Amino acid sequence: MRLGVDIGGTKTAAVVLGDDGEVLTTATAPSGRGAVDVVAQATRIARLAMAEVGGPGAITAAGACIPGLVDPAAGTVRHAVNLEVEHLDLARDLGAALGLVVSVENDVKSAALGAHHLSGLGAARTLAYLNLGTGLAAAVVHAGEVVRGVDGVAGEIGHLPFGGDVVCACGQTGCLETTASGTALLRMWPEAAAHDWDLVGAAARGDSAAVLAAASLCGGVALAVQVLVLASGAQSVVMSGGLTAMGEPLLEAIRAELRIRAASSPFLGSLALAERVSFLPAGVPVAAIGAARLTTPEVETATGGAAWRS
Amino acid sequence: MRLGVDIGGTKTAAVVLGDDGEVLTTATAPSGRGAVDVVAQATRIARLAMAEVGGPGAITAAGACIPGLVDPAAGTVRHAVNLEVEHLDLARDLGAALGLVVSVENDVKSAALGAHHLSGLGAARTLAYLNLGTGLAAAVVHAGEVVRGVDGVAGEIGHLPFGGDVVCACGQTGCLETTASGTALLRMWPEAAAHDWDLVGAAARGDSAAVLAAASLCGGVALAVQVLVLASGAQSVVMSGGLTAMGEPLLEAIRAELRIRAASSPFLGSLALAERVSFLPAGVPVAAIGAARLTTPEVETATGGAAWRS
Repeated sequence: MRLGVDIGGTKTAAVVLGDDGEVLTTATAPSGRGAVDVVAQATRIARLAMAEVGGPGAITAAGACIPGLVDPAAGTVRHAVNLEVEHLDLARDLGAALGLVVSVENDVKSAALGAHHLSGLGAARTLAYLNLGTGLAAAVVHAGEVVRGVDGVAGEIGHLPFGGDVVCACGQTGCLETTASGTALLRMWPEAAAHDWDLVGAAARGDSAAVLAAASLCGGVALAVQVLVLASGAQSVVMSGGLTAMGEPLLEAIRAELRIRAASSPFLGSLALAERVSFLPAGVPVAAIGAARLTTPEVETATGGAAWRS
Repeated sequence: MRLGVDIGGTKTAAVVLGDDGEVLTTATAPSGRGAVDVVAQATRIARLAMAEVGGPGAITAAGACIPGLVDPAAGTVRHAVNLEVEHLDLARDLGAALGLVVSVENDVKSAALGAHHLSGLGAARTLAYLNLGTGLAAAVVHAGEVVRGVDGVAGEIGHLPFGGDVVCACGQTGCLETTASGTALLRMWPEAAAHDWDLVGAAARGDSAAVLAAASLCGGVALAVQVLVLASGAQSVVMSGGLTAMGEPLLEAIRAELRIRAASSPFLGSLALAERVSFLPAGVPVAAIGAARLTTPEVETATGGAAWRS
C-alpha cells in the first residue's frame, strides 16, 4: 500500500492506495502554519489515514506534495508562502516523524500524476493537468513521468505574456494568468461572490462585467489548451482547481470558445481540442493520489547549455 | 553503422554514422520532385554515402526524414507540398529501393533528435530545437525521444496566436509565425536581399523598416523560447534554419531581448534564458544525423479523452 499526503494552502489530505491503485482511505484536516506545524499536522493526518489500514507497517511507499518551489532530489521546499514556510526539509522531517521514506513534489505536478493515474491512460499518452485556481498553472505527464524542466518550471504557462496591459505579480505585463485565473476573474467581476460565482449564468442574463470576464476567462483557458497541445504535446487536458467548481456551464463555455477557434482554422479544427478537455470530478483528492505514486529522482549532474561535440 | 537521409525542400543529404555516433561520410544533391523522383534521388544519394563505407551490408539501421505530415508508425508522409508529394509510403518505397528497413519522421523532429545527439546532453536533459526558416516550428526531445503529441503536432508553436493583426496561412490571426519567421521578415523588410540579409546591421544603421522587423523577430523568438522553457520544459533551446545564417549578430540580438525581459521579472531572470539559447553551427547535417537515429514506433491504439476510473 502507498501513502500520499497533499499539504494544501488551506487543508491537508492523506490517502492510502491499495495495490491496484484504488483509494482505500482518506483523511482531511486544516493545514498547519509554519514549518513545524505544517509537518506536525501532516503527520497527524497521515497517521489517521494509515490507522484505517493497519498502521505504517503495511505502507511500502510514501510521498507528499506542497505548493512552492520543490526540489524532489533534495526533498526540500522553498517559498510555500500561504503556509508561512520559507524553507523546509519536508522529505527528512515528515519521513522521520512517520518512520517512512517520503518522496516530495510540487502540488500541481503531483496532481498531474494523480490525474494521469485516474484517467486510466497508459504511459504512451501525454496528459496535461491545468489548474484553474487563484493563479493559472499546469503540469504535463509524458512517458509516465511529470516533466520538470528548469528547476521545475515546466508547466508555468500562466506566466507566458500573451497580451493585454495588466501587470502580473511576476513582473511581466500581459501574462496569461492576468486573463484566466481566480484573481483575474475577481478583478474583472468583483461581484462574483454576490452571484454565487455563477459567471456563465450572469453573463447569459446580460451582466456586462460578467460577459467581459467570461470572454476573458474562456479565451485565456482556450489559449492555455492550445499551448499545452501545441507546445507540450498534450493529448488530453484535464482541468481542476477552484474555478472548475462552476462545473458543466463553464466547461461548455470553454468548449464553445475552442470550437469558435477551430472554425477559423482547418489546422486547429483537425486537433479537435474541444473533445480533449475535461474537468476532474469534484472532491477527488487528485494531488494526494499523485503524491502516493511519487518516487525520488537521482540528483541530476546537469551542465548548462548544449556543448557542441567537435 | 547507421544511415540517415534528410529529404529537404531543395536538397537531399545522406550521412553514415559510425558506432560511436560520429559522421563517417556525407553526400548531398538536389531533391527530386514528385513521389517517384523523391525516392529515386534519395536512393541515389544514400547509395553514394554508403559506397564510401563499403556499401549497405555494413548498415544496421536506417532512417529518413521529410517535411510534411509524417506517420512514423505507418511509415508514410502526406502534404510534403514543396516536394510536390501528396502521399508517399516512404518507409516502404525507400526501404525496398535500398534493401534496408527504413524508419521515417518529420524533418523538424528528426533535426531535434540530431541536435540532441550532437549536444552531448544525456537523456535526462530536455532539449528544444527551434527552426527559424520560412516558417517557425520547434520539436522537443524529452527522455531521449522526440515528443509527438496529437498526430505529431507537438512543437508547432508557430501557430500559437499571441497577438497582432496579421492573418496566418493556418487561418488564425496573430500567430507567432507572423512575427518571427522568414516570411514575416520579408513582409516587414522587403529589402532583405538588397542588404544581404544583414538585418541587425541595417537596424543599427537606422534603417527604420529593419529596426521594426528586428524588434518583431527578436521579440517573437524570445517569446518562442519562453514557450519552450515554460510549457515544453526545455532546458536548452538550439536554433537552426535559414535565418540563423545571420549568425552571431542575430543570436546576440535575441539574447539582448531575453535579458531585457529578464530584467523586468525576477521569475524570468531566475531562468537565465539568454544562457540557454544557441545557434547550431552552420553546415551540420543535423536532420540527417537525427534520421540515422530513428526507430519505428509501435502502432498506438489510442483512445480520445480521459475516461475517469470509477
